[in-house]
Amino acid sequence: MSMKNLRKDNYPEWYQNVVAEADMAENSASPGCMVIKPWGYGIWECIRNVFDDKFRETNHENCYFPMFIPLSFFQKEAEHVEGFAKEMAVVTHSRLTSVDGKLVPSSPLDEPLIVRPTSEAIIADSFSKWVKSYRDLPVLINQWANVVRWEMRPRLFLRTREFLWQEGHTAHASAEEAEAETKQMLEVYKDVSENALAMPVIPGRKPEHEKFPGAVDTYCIEAMMQDGKALQAGTSHFLGQNFAKSANISFVNKQNQPEFAYTTSWGVSTRLIGGVIMTHADDEGMVVPPRIAPYQIILLPLIKNPEDKDKILAYVSQIQQELKKQFPFGEKIRIKVDARDRKPADKFWEWTKKGAPIICEVGMRDVEGQKIMVKERIKLGTDEGKQIVDVNEFCQNISSRLEGLQKQMFNKAKARLEANIRTDIKTPEDFRRYFAESNVWIEDGKQGKVAFVRGKWCGDDATESLLKEMKITIRCIPFDQTNTQGVCLLTGKPATMDVIYARSY
Amino acid sequence: MSMKNLRKDNYPEWYQNVVAEADMAENSASPGCMVIKPWGYGIWECIRNVFDDKFRETNHENCYFPMFIPLSFFQKEAEHVEGFAKEMAVVTHSRLTSVDGKLVPSSPLDEPLIVRPTSEAIIADSFSKWVKSYRDLPVLINQWANVVRWEMRPRLFLRTREFLWQEGHTAHASAEEAEAETKQMLEVYKDVSENALAMPVIPGRKPEHEKFPGAVDTYCIEAMMQDGKALQAGTSHFLGQNFAKSANISFVNKQNQPEFAYTTSWGVSTRLIGGVIMTHADDEGMVVPPRIAPYQIILLPLIKNPEDKDKILAYVSQIQQELKKQFPFGEKIRIKVDARDRKPADKFWEWTKKGAPIICEVGMRDVEGQKIMVKERIKLGTDEGKQIVDVNEFCQNISSRLEGLQKQMFNKAKARLEANIRTDIKTPEDFRRYFAESNVWIEDGKQGKVAFVRGKWCGDDATESLLKEMKITIRCIPFDQTNTQGVCLLTGKPATMDVIYARSY
Repeated sequence: MSMKNLRKDNYPEWYQNVVAEADMAENSASPGCMVIKPWGYGIWECIRNVFDDKFRETNHENCYFPMFIPLSFFQKEAEHVEGFAKEMAVVTHSRLTSVDGKLVPSSPLDEPLIVRPTSEAIIADSFSKWVKSYRDLPVLINQWANVVRWEMRPRLFLRTREFLWQEGHTAHASAEEAEAETKQMLEVYKDVSENALAMPVIPGRKPEHEKFPGAVDTYCIEAMMQDGKALQAGTSHFLGQNFAKSANISFVNKQNQPEFAYTTSWGVSTRLIGGVIMTHADDEGMVVPPRIAPYQIILLPLIKNPEDKDKILAYVSQIQQELKKQFPFGEKIRIKVDARDRKPADKFWEWTKKGAPIICEVGMRDVEGQKIMVKERIKLGTDEGKQIVDVNEFCQNISSRLEGLQKQMFNKAKARLEANIRTDIKTPEDFRRYFAESNVWIEDGKQGKVAFVRGKWCGDDATESLLKEMKITIRCIPFDQTNTQGVCLLTGKPATMDVIYARSY
Repeated sequence: MSMKNLRKDNYPEWYQNVVAEADMAENSASPGCMVIKPWGYGIWECIRNVFDDKFRETNHENCYFPMFIPLSFFQKEAEHVEGFAKEMAVVTHSRLTSVDGKLVPSSPLDEPLIVRPTSEAIIADSFSKWVKSYRDLPVLINQWANVVRWEMRPRLFLRTREFLWQEGHTAHASAEEAEAETKQMLEVYKDVSENALAMPVIPGRKPEHEKFPGAVDTYCIEAMMQDGKALQAGTSHFLGQNFAKSANISFVNKQNQPEFAYTTSWGVSTRLIGGVIMTHADDEGMVVPPRIAPYQIILLPLIKNPEDKDKILAYVSQIQQELKKQFPFGEKIRIKVDARDRKPADKFWEWTKKGAPIICEVGMRDVEGQKIMVKERIKLGTDEGKQIVDVNEFCQNISSRLEGLQKQMFNKAKARLEANIRTDIKTPEDFRRYFAESNVWIEDGKQGKVAFVRGKWCGDDATESLLKEMKITIRCIPFDQTNTQGVCLLTGKPATMDVIYARSY
């Protein structure tokens, strides 16, 4: 299977192929919802575990809130938002009854329930009961949950009606502490994206018109996909006292005065898996960074002569034990011995398309010579793609080999990102011409056509209509501002603020 | 806080108090749904991790299926079941719109969606696409998910409208293999209940009238609560070809003939936490078995003199490191240093009510003498309740100490179960008189009033009405049958089958 031309010519179709061939997810009988299959879910579990460690280190505790939110919780928002309308799943009945053999909803609810699109409202309601004094603060919690947004154009991992995510929610005694929390969690997102997902990101602040409704500030990390589009990989919101006021999260402060708490929320979702695919997958299919690979090493016994079988399997089992011994303290190593009764070449391609970082083939010759054939996924098709190495050396160095692969994946993606942020567009005319070009395509790690534009913005949110017209967005106002003088690429007005302009998912 | 009389006189109220005082869960603004707070959710995560290891060992893979199930998937069942009616959450609209400032559901769905009460139907639909040949079998999957059943009398952990669970679903090429799977997973449930939750159970088969609808056989594990009632702690269903036929899971077998697959399903839920509470909690509150305790050891620095603070905290930190070193390979040890600025006695009672297995107090005298004050939760109030021990000895023996506490908790519960299964009731008259008694109460581990009756049943499912009238149920037909002759305790007819009769949750 080569998908080279597909990746270049029809990126969306290539994406679908990668997901299907890696057997990560598929559409289901439930409209717009996906089935996350074991390889895809395994990646999600690895991502979850990395985040859980970080959340614990930063003193957050996991808990679980109801997925049904009473309709009235949205009423206040509706009163304030002009033309309020939300695409959400609404539960209106609590029973199915058979009438003349046909099932119909019955027992209508007094108050309809909304399946959570996000949980600020219902969690704020709990916080209002938990928090009475400054001594009860901060409250630092997180939940892993399913959420629903009624998407009309679903795409596996990127946009489905139901998806999985984590949402952190915190309450603090001061604005400063809440802002520090918001930024700390954005830093955690950047850390995990770059060090576990090997996906470099640009951290920054969203412009006013891209903020989460109700937030004082929304911070985000933005990644660049191979087709030059941006993917918002995580957001962290400083909510000020807005949610605290509407849910009445108030406390008696140290000066014995009543005060509303300062809250934050932050989340990442199964969308990250879409980001990993569009950062690392190649012409042969998926490539998974070692730190989030459900199996980092696949051991494939090559049994040509049935009478060698026991010896080869014993050797493979010994290798497996030896590899595990290299990880006595830290993270466990994840190894799969694939001894299924199938053609070795088929099995090799199956794991290649899934993107397992290291695939080892072990035959009788290896047993005799105490060797092992090592194939690293990211070097597939290159001269280094196949190495026959001493088995003890392989086992002893497994940790640094995995670490090396992880770094190479990050560096490659980082080089691509850096090579493809155009900073030389200085006028609205050039800017318009640039984005009028279509079919942006980036050669891996090389300077090709350019995707993101880093340039000036006047800061006027009324420019939103211009952006919509050009089908681009301001991804973020990066933290590393240059503070130079220039002209706004949308309006031509004088401007000093740097922003990232891009097409996006 | 002593809840001794409460536990004896008003067990349901005692239960609620334990949950509240341990800060494990609470009711929410979403009717009938609970908020699972960090200590309760932490226990659930520990339970999940133990099960996940077992599921992996038995070759199951985790994945995730949509929570919305199209109404039509229930239509077939409705056609076959007389007076079919199900208490389920029905999604009928996909939008909220503001009409004259008031929010109303809009955009009605063409086909209503049901929030999964269980996922056999939608998973069978996926299986029908995955399985073509005997080579595709077995399919062995599991998912951790939230499910909804519209309970009218919700109780925290025991019965809530939304709850968390795992559901395993498998498909096999033969009935024998599927039955073996069903029994293997029941064995896993028994193993985890007894060895991780320290909750002894009776494994057996459900009578026909208690089976899961659509199952050929339902197996279960039944636990005894302190009030003598039974709690169904897990079920494993052999579904034969029933679901395979209705969802068309068919495969070409080795003889090249089309055949329907044989499927199973099995599940445990957050209800297990209710079982742990009613097995182990005592007059002072919750008691958590070490294997599922979010923190197994609480280290409480006792700082009387502020200038000792640094020395004491350094000593505590050293103890924490030393304890961690004892677990280089296996499960991680979970330790909490509680250095909050509160009264030591308050902190001690907080962790006592939460049921942390070991609480250690560390003051300046301990630093000087290289000692530590160890309080084991299950020995609270006894002479052994407080031990001042050598700190090195404590650290070095921590693994066996935790293991010992775990065993003691199991043994105590096991003794209670065994002492309270009455086997001497031989006639319907005595049986009726026995269950007419109310307020059954069991003294821990001692022979008190008796709860379960193990006796004969004629096997006639028409006796269901008699059972209902007496407000009891047949919990299971235990695997260890005596095959003696006797009379049915319900009808007086001759009978050889032993069953467990009990009141239940």
